[in-house]
Amino acid sequence: MSLSLNNVNLSKGVNALDEHTLIQTYFSDVGSAYLAEQDVRISVGDDSSIISLPSGKESVVSVDTSIENVHFLDSMSPDDIAYRAVVVALSDLAACGASPAWYSVALTFPEFDEGWLQEFSDGLRRASDDYRIPLIGGDTTKGKLSITVQVNGYCDKGKSILRSKAKPNETIYISGFVGDASKGLKSLKGQSTATDKQIGSFLKPKARIDLGIKLKGIASSAIDISDGLLQDLKHICEASGVGAQIVLHKVPTSFDAITSIAEINSGDDYEICFTSSPKNEATIKEISEELEIKITAIGKTNDSKTMRVLDGEGNDIPVESGYSHF
Amino acid sequence: MSLSLNNVNLSKGVNALDEHTLIQTYFSDVGSAYLAEQDVRISVGDDSSIISLPSGKESVVSVDTSIENVHFLDSMSPDDIAYRAVVVALSDLAACGASPAWYSVALTFPEFDEGWLQEFSDGLRRASDDYRIPLIGGDTTKGKLSITVQVNGYCDKGKSILRSKAKPNETIYISGFVGDASKGLKSLKGQSTATDKQIGSFLKPKARIDLGIKLKGIASSAIDISDGLLQDLKHICEASGVGAQIVLHKVPTSFDAITSIAEINSGDDYEICFTSSPKNEATIKEISEELEIKITAIGKTNDSKTMRVLDGEGNDIPVESGYSHF
Repeated sequence: MSLSLNNVNLSKGVNALDEHTLIQTYFSDVGSAYLAEQDVRISVGDDSSIISLPSGKESVVSVDTSIENVHFLDSMSPDDIAYRAVVVALSDLAACGASPAWYSVALTFPEFDEGWLQEFSDGLRRASDDYRIPLIGGDTTKGKLSITVQVNGYCDKGKSILRSKAKPNETIYISGFVGDASKGLKSLKGQSTATDKQIGSFLKPKARIDLGIKLKGIASSAIDISDGLLQDLKHICEASGVGAQIVLHKVPTSFDAITSIAEINSGDDYEICFTSSPKNEATIKEISEELEIKITAIGKTNDSKTMRVLDGEGNDIPVESGYSHF
Repeated sequence: MSLSLNNVNLSKGVNALDEHTLIQTYFSDVGSAYLAEQDVRISVGDDSSIISLPSGKESVVSVDTSIENVHFLDSMSPDDIAYRAVVVALSDLAACGASPAWYSVALTFPEFDEGWLQEFSDGLRRASDDYRIPLIGGDTTKGKLSITVQVNGYCDKGKSILRSKAKPNETIYISGFVGDASKGLKSLKGQSTATDKQIGSFLKPKARIDLGIKLKGIASSAIDISDGLLQDLKHICEASGVGAQIVLHKVPTSFDAITSIAEINSGDDYEICFTSSPKNEATIKEISEELEIKITAIGKTNDSKTMRVLDGEGNDIPVESGYSHF
């Protein structure tokens, strides 16, 4: 349903009028400026949301659940929690080269708290504005704080970038810097210090939508590295049936020196790892300059069915079991 | 993402290989027989799911979160929990007259339990088969049991049935029987006895998809009565700017006599309440006979802006505050 009164009745111990007010007050106008642009006929308030479909397109759909103290910290502001939950889902669309169209939010929260909901909806509004997408519906339920965001985007039919189309002897690239979000998270947990930029990488991630769109027809495969660079590159290798070899010190970080593989494999970076034929090198440089996004070549695919990480002298660095072979 | 390995890394305390196995074993083939029929290019396993869009259609989207001991009982089998979570979401599509196309599941569960997951995925499989829809993706996370289902259906452009198009002097109809699910639920809680049919109404609800499709162009408005007949009829009245008057004893129940309004307003019935011009009476009778679904006229809309419930003698029955006027 569309953030409507479904699932609400007095026997379930929820005050219907309160939820009605809640939805009208906090959610009904989130991103409503983009409803017409995305051809959304019916948004928050009916049984379902209704969207006119563009012709010649395919839908690209992704779902992400964010759980308190697993995917975000309870010390974070509701605004940041909401914003992050949406961007994390959008990052999967970026990896496919899709243009975001709309999203829904299923919000479970423990108690009615006006200030919290206001800030939470502010975070959704910020995400809507940054990516020009309306909130079209969802559900609100009572329970432990949890946010499930479904995002929907479009690509021209058959043009989405997949994990499975990498070929041997292609260049492996990564956008931005790796490892910042993890350092930011550790700092937020009080375990170490981090720069404002690193903390911002965790609290206010960016989905590389513009980059994904530019990479259509250029990248043979792509993935976001939310699970960790090596793990996600392994997904590309498995799905494409190729091997990979990367050079550790080529992986771009914002800190001085990489002291362990864990530093570049810690997850929560919403950067895009992609493969592309060497003939596209100049085009990729142009994309990098146009979007002002650092794009770094970190290795090559091969036909070996293994994944190797090398140091500066070309020696193998042992990779955790489960990562090196498949 | 598409029930992939996103959101999983070792820093989050989830064993990635286990989740990979879990997804492959329990979710990757749910409803896969319907992928081609629904033009799903990429299903469970990539960053996103990709669906080719039909032309001349609109998407009808609904999201429902089911929470343990709020929307289902922890004593229910995982099979019934899964099946019910999907059907509850599909019921919103039925009310819009949409044909279901696919669904995603965001599953949060407390611990890895092979038997539980097997049964849960059996329930999804059963829902997929009953409604001919593939599971296209979702997310799995660790936490208190909660299931968020997003369903997506299609209607011809502009043909979806809305809440907001009822007019005065139309007939108000209801499908099936009202109050069974609530009696079934009370019995499951050990609070009273109920028939197998009533228990089945709660455990194995049906989404009235076929009825919704037939009602396009016939019903001026429709809603499912999951929140309770009066509450949901009120949604139609509010959205359409009409009033309503129903006769209590006309509301069809499977039990002998209605002893209170609560009995027909207890929610969890996934029947369709709809309005239609009196000129469609014969057509509605034909639809009822063709689909073998009881359809009962229970009252009339008017231009009064109030909702009244009458007894057999035409006297007003007091309706709970918050329901009778708006």
